Amino acid sequence: MKRIKILLAYDGTDFNGWQFQPNGPSIQEELTRAIEKTTGVRSVPIGSGRTDSGVHALGQVAHFDTPATISCEKWRGAFAHYLPRAIVVREVTEVPPTFHARRSALFKLYRYVFHAARSPDPFMLRYSWKVHHELNDSLMAQGAKELVGTHDFRAFETDWPNRRSSVRTVRRCDISRWGDFVHLDIESNGFLYNMVRSIAGSLAEIGRGHWPLERMRKILHAEDRSLAGPTAPAQGLFLVRVTYGEGEPLADEEVFEEGRG
Amino acid sequence: MKRIKILLAYDGTDFNGWQFQPNGPSIQEELTRAIEKTTGVRSVPIGSGRTDSGVHALGQVAHFDTPATISCEKWRGAFAHYLPRAIVVREVTEVPPTFHARRSALFKLYRYVFHAARSPDPFMLRYSWKVHHELNDSLMAQGAKELVGTHDFRAFETDWPNRRSSVRTVRRCDISRWGDFVHLDIESNGFLYNMVRSIAGSLAEIGRGHWPLERMRKILHAEDRSLAGPTAPAQGLFLVRVTYGEGEPLADEEVFEEGRG
Repeated sequence: MKRIKILLAYDGTDFNGWQFQPNGPSIQEELTRAIEKTTGVRSVPIGSGRTDSGVHALGQVAHFDTPATISCEKWRGAFAHYLPRAIVVREVTEVPPTFHARRSALFKLYRYVFHAARSPDPFMLRYSWKVHHELNDSLMAQGAKELVGTHDFRAFETDWPNRRSSVRTVRRCDISRWGDFVHLDIESNGFLYNMVRSIAGSLAEIGRGHWPLERMRKILHAEDRSLAGPTAPAQGLFLVRVTYGEGEPLADEEVFEEGRG
Repeated sequence: MKRIKILLAYDGTDFNGWQFQPNGPSIQEELTRAIEKTTGVRSVPIGSGRTDSGVHALGQVAHFDTPATISCEKWRGAFAHYLPRAIVVREVTEVPPTFHARRSALFKLYRYVFHAARSPDPFMLRYSWKVHHELNDSLMAQGAKELVGTHDFRAFETDWPNRRSSVRTVRRCDISRWGDFVHLDIESNGFLYNMVRSIAGSLAEIGRGHWPLERMRKILHAEDRSLAGPTAPAQGLFLVRVTYGEGEPLADEEVFEEGRG
């Protein structure tokens, strides 16, 4: 058996997320089908984590085991041939059996894209959240900074009762402006369910002046979901990068991801 | 009667071009429907020119006449309400009856987007032409420069027999590189049918080293369509801007546009 690691990008618009779903195509299902067409053997890839319906990826990572002795270059060609155009496998490498796309991950970086402008942009509708107010990115940046460090993030989690621990370490949480677009970049050793989207929803409330800046710290410390902002829509969210190394695996996140209903 | 000018952007992916078509939705049809829903009166907008199926617009311009006395701000709201999300009316202004979106246009600027990379980009599939070779943008820029000036462009036209004159003045034809993307920006007092796309197809042949640079001048001077490159795919083409002023109207283009089958 060989263990194969893939780095892939996808436009999540037309998929029901990463995970197999009965009610529509998923990224995992498309990959499984492509692998089976290539080798004749069914192998289900394991991703670094699930992405929800409509969420995009620039650098998702997954692994699978296969008895096939196909070169990495041929694998790339096979994926290009069998996958729908919205899913692109960018790199294929053979890895030792100790590599695990989810357990070996040290950090994940997500980007959330807000679009604050008078007119919507028809080319970014699928890839951003069009908000109806101007956003003060300097206030948002200050609110984002409150989240850096090790905290209990349960206030930003949906379905909290499923979890054992909701403590995570955010090592980066930045806001940047690109014309009418505001980017939230958040990197952590793990993410709770809907964590980035509820942080994005909270920062939008601060950015449009609906909440005072202090609210962010209050939400975090109260550990109460009802205080946080609305869950921002999926189409603004991108999984940008997964970082691997020799560090501690994300045991908590693993339990969480398995536990999701 | 009031004459209303609109500036609009659209993602052309899911439309059969600007012009009314029996076999699918067109931009003109969607606008006509939105106007009729707003006023109860049917008014068909006239565009600065047709865009083909799958071609996008950042700054298309159109006008229509209406008996309704609706403010420009209300018109914007009505378009936002009634149009599909992929069509965005960015500006609405009342203009004198002498303004004509097609006849009053002095210049149009088109952009063609090439994507030269090993892996496709799932987010740019709808908005670029993924070529399978590296592109030498410096050679392409030299080829593009050959087209600046007043020339008979019939070598870059499909359906030549429909036309009276195929002489046009190109005042700008630039190539620029943005990472893996190469942009062709071409501005002219008028465009023949498929002119930008066949110029793009020809420049791609030069950029990938398949043709020598001299071929561009040869195509132009031979005035023979069979010498030019293939028509590049529609999804890479954007109508960027239409410039109006007090100058000479584009009589030739008008004949062309009316004459298309």
